[in-house]
Amino acid sequence: MSAGGRLGAIHHVAIVVRSIDASLPRYRELFGLDPEADPVAFASQRVRLCFLPTGPEPAARIELVEPMDDDSGVARFLADRGEGVHHLCFVTDDLPRELEHLVAREAELIDTEPRPGAHGTVAFVHPRTLNGVLWELLEPGAG
Amino acid sequence: MSAGGRLGAIHHVAIVVRSIDASLPRYRELFGLDPEADPVAFASQRVRLCFLPTGPEPAARIELVEPMDDDSGVARFLADRGEGVHHLCFVTDDLPRELEHLVAREAELIDTEPRPGAHGTVAFVHPRTLNGVLWELLEPGAG
Repeated sequence: MSAGGRLGAIHHVAIVVRSIDASLPRYRELFGLDPEADPVAFASQRVRLCFLPTGPEPAARIELVEPMDDDSGVARFLADRGEGVHHLCFVTDDLPRELEHLVAREAELIDTEPRPGAHGTVAFVHPRTLNGVLWELLEPGAG
Repeated sequence: MSAGGRLGAIHHVAIVVRSIDASLPRYRELFGLDPEADPVAFASQRVRLCFLPTGPEPAARIELVEPMDDDSGVARFLADRGEGVHHLCFVTDDLPRELEHLVAREAELIDTEPRPGAHGTVAFVHPRTLNGVLWELLEPGAG
């Protein structure tokens, strides 16, 4: 469905936050959103992550991203811009083919090869490629 | 499902762009995304809008938002921050009740009453309320 230049559904919208623990009660209180699991450390990126499903299945998720130190890209984003939307993640069923498709059309990739993510293999497309948005592509379960 | 503090699905993610017409070909070329209809002027907000469905039905949409002049809030966003994600919109089946729920929990609302939007009635929640994100709530078909 999505291979070769046809994205699938939104998997998540990532929001950089100072503190996941401090933020979670407000998501429940205001919007009725609960985490699908406890926050996890994603040590290679120096961040903690927490996913909150929204709406009926298959549910797009809010991903809360909290820097674990002051050196990560996410920490710099937080210092420079404050809390807010960090990236949009879309599902693909063939990430290597999707990356070939993008390279052939001169998209600027942050990751030219799939790398491990929290839900499968992922690759990021640079915000310069299209309207200042950091796009993440995810092949669920792969890797 | 969503009334009284339980949001529904993501309806769209809005991206502020300098030019919808200049951007659309890249969405098709890179990601296979096509508009669900021609761009429309939403004169009360001084913006042009274009919606691109993503993934299978019910599809969350990318909303491209282009300022029609230099005076709108969207124009100021573009001047201050450049192109990028502007807000997240979630479906609710009872917007007046949702707003009461939020007010009772001291959320800071931009719109205390539903107002007409492109797909129904809408209200915006101030980014100060939760993690720097501008949240839009939409009751489809209402108004």
